[in-house]
Amino acid sequence: MKSTAIVLASRPTGAPGPENFRTEEIEIEAPLDGEVSLRVLYLSLDPYMRGRMSDAKSYAEPVPVGGVMEGETVCEVMQSKNPGFKEGDIVRAMTGWRTHANMDARRVKQVNTYGAPASTALGVLGMPGFTAYGGMKVIGQPKSGETVVVAAASGPVGSLVGQLAMRVGARAVGIAGGRDKCDYVKNELGFDAVVDHRSPDFASELAGLCPKGIDVYFENVGGHVWDAVLPLLNLYARVPVCGLIAQYNGPVIGEQDRLPATVSAILRRSLLLRGFINTEFVPTHYEAFQQELGPLVASGEIKYREDVVDGLENAPEAFIGMLRGSNFGKLLVRVS
Amino acid sequence: MKSTAIVLASRPTGAPGPENFRTEEIEIEAPLDGEVSLRVLYLSLDPYMRGRMSDAKSYAEPVPVGGVMEGETVCEVMQSKNPGFKEGDIVRAMTGWRTHANMDARRVKQVNTYGAPASTALGVLGMPGFTAYGGMKVIGQPKSGETVVVAAASGPVGSLVGQLAMRVGARAVGIAGGRDKCDYVKNELGFDAVVDHRSPDFASELAGLCPKGIDVYFENVGGHVWDAVLPLLNLYARVPVCGLIAQYNGPVIGEQDRLPATVSAILRRSLLLRGFINTEFVPTHYEAFQQELGPLVASGEIKYREDVVDGLENAPEAFIGMLRGSNFGKLLVRVS
Repeated sequence: MKSTAIVLASRPTGAPGPENFRTEEIEIEAPLDGEVSLRVLYLSLDPYMRGRMSDAKSYAEPVPVGGVMEGETVCEVMQSKNPGFKEGDIVRAMTGWRTHANMDARRVKQVNTYGAPASTALGVLGMPGFTAYGGMKVIGQPKSGETVVVAAASGPVGSLVGQLAMRVGARAVGIAGGRDKCDYVKNELGFDAVVDHRSPDFASELAGLCPKGIDVYFENVGGHVWDAVLPLLNLYARVPVCGLIAQYNGPVIGEQDRLPATVSAILRRSLLLRGFINTEFVPTHYEAFQQELGPLVASGEIKYREDVVDGLENAPEAFIGMLRGSNFGKLLVRVS
Repeated sequence: MKSTAIVLASRPTGAPGPENFRTEEIEIEAPLDGEVSLRVLYLSLDPYMRGRMSDAKSYAEPVPVGGVMEGETVCEVMQSKNPGFKEGDIVRAMTGWRTHANMDARRVKQVNTYGAPASTALGVLGMPGFTAYGGMKVIGQPKSGETVVVAAASGPVGSLVGQLAMRVGARAVGIAGGRDKCDYVKNELGFDAVVDHRSPDFASELAGLCPKGIDVYFENVGGHVWDAVLPLLNLYARVPVCGLIAQYNGPVIGEQDRLPATVSAILRRSLLLRGFINTEFVPTHYEAFQQELGPLVASGEIKYREDVVDGLENAPEAFIGMLRGSNFGKLLVRVS
């Protein structure tokens, strides 16, 4: 049997382009004892993958040049050599960008979405959702009456950050790019307010929407949103830092050094900044996340949006577009 | 009765100079009911006072132009109109830079140094010591075998940070300026290692002294020490931020924007940065601080050093020098 796979052809400098990817056919053998043979249904495309394309020191090993692009998928079990799985089971696994794979069953998880579509296991009920949940539970800790600001608010992390904030009685202010996304955040997700980061008056509009300052800023975009947020952060504000999409494509050279102003604000307003990768909180919070959010997603109380691209061959283009913000909702590739 | 006082003559731009201060004579009336009349023995000079000279938004109100410079002192009670205090009591109070003051007794604290000199109530057993203690207990949380780095290691905060680190079995690496201070940190305080930040090879020397990276960096100086520390911070490193002496004199304009590299490191290595003012932890930790450290200071197990200047009239010059790092130990003014 063969698997189609997309491999890293070369490391990008700056924004990745199609030339950094290459399609290959890989021979798949029969699964060994303890393995499951998987057919990929959905591939999740996420900003962290940009980091894996670089060899900068990071929390995770880079993808080797010539290696299959890393990624999480929802799959159907075609053949199982492990008693914990049977043919037809729907599972999630880090198969990477490919159509088929054999995986050690210990690295495969049964999908339980409480009746929501299986694809949500890659979005609102998967790692993006858990990033929002863990960052808010452990670091952000919003309280009733506080103001929570999140960028990429129409995306899989940001949309849940805001909804979790509102569920504890905090005010959710979203930042999104363009009329459609802003309308969705305000009208569909029900955020208290939304501001378009492309507006020429973005900083003053954000300030106007946060009359009592900002208590939690969920940092998942990086770039110049920070400059507008920093002056608004209240005493003891918390800043979970989980992604910096604007920086994945290389450092921004500014006109001046913005570090002193940031560190000075950290001191003067007793701010908390804490970077995290969702895996840190899996042992302590993943179970509660699934039990708490699964039923809410299945019932429609928690809303989510998916942006589904058809065909693995279109994954590179979709990924490149995502880094520019062209997707609208959790970006998935329907593989088969 | 008259009090001599030093007032803020004008707000400095950049480093303060003698022209920003003025000496005045203030008439002191007899204490009212509930007040105590105090004779100042020691005035503490601390970097935070530079912040109070500016009107930038901060955690505390600025000193008004023409107002007495803010500061904590150890005093003798000359007359008491409050049953909690009697003549001859040694107390600490925020009298400011002056020789005498009447204070509401509710704003005055009895000094208990467990037998150590009363001046330690402004240093190792006072707010500087508590800054080290609170920052390490709540934020730094060093563990046995970890590496703790602190700058201004010969100063009242840094010297205790290192000693507290060693008491839990962590490795203490100090940063200090000049041979004398470095010798003191290594030989008298017993730090595991020390590096001179004036050395042309400072960054590589620091790296060499931290072969297992840095787990806690106690940030109390700001400026370019950060550039040397940042690449060495380990996964889950903690950075209590309690002072930025190098930034109090205005922002440093760099050749490029250092913020992206810092935020990227926060993300990639799950760093914690947390600004704090020691008063935040007073309700929860001050009692334990006094009980735990008082006897250790009195017995000499915890070491400290004071740099005592004679005469209130010399306070401005001593303060200006401190901002350049010319003091060696906790800077105090012996007022009477």
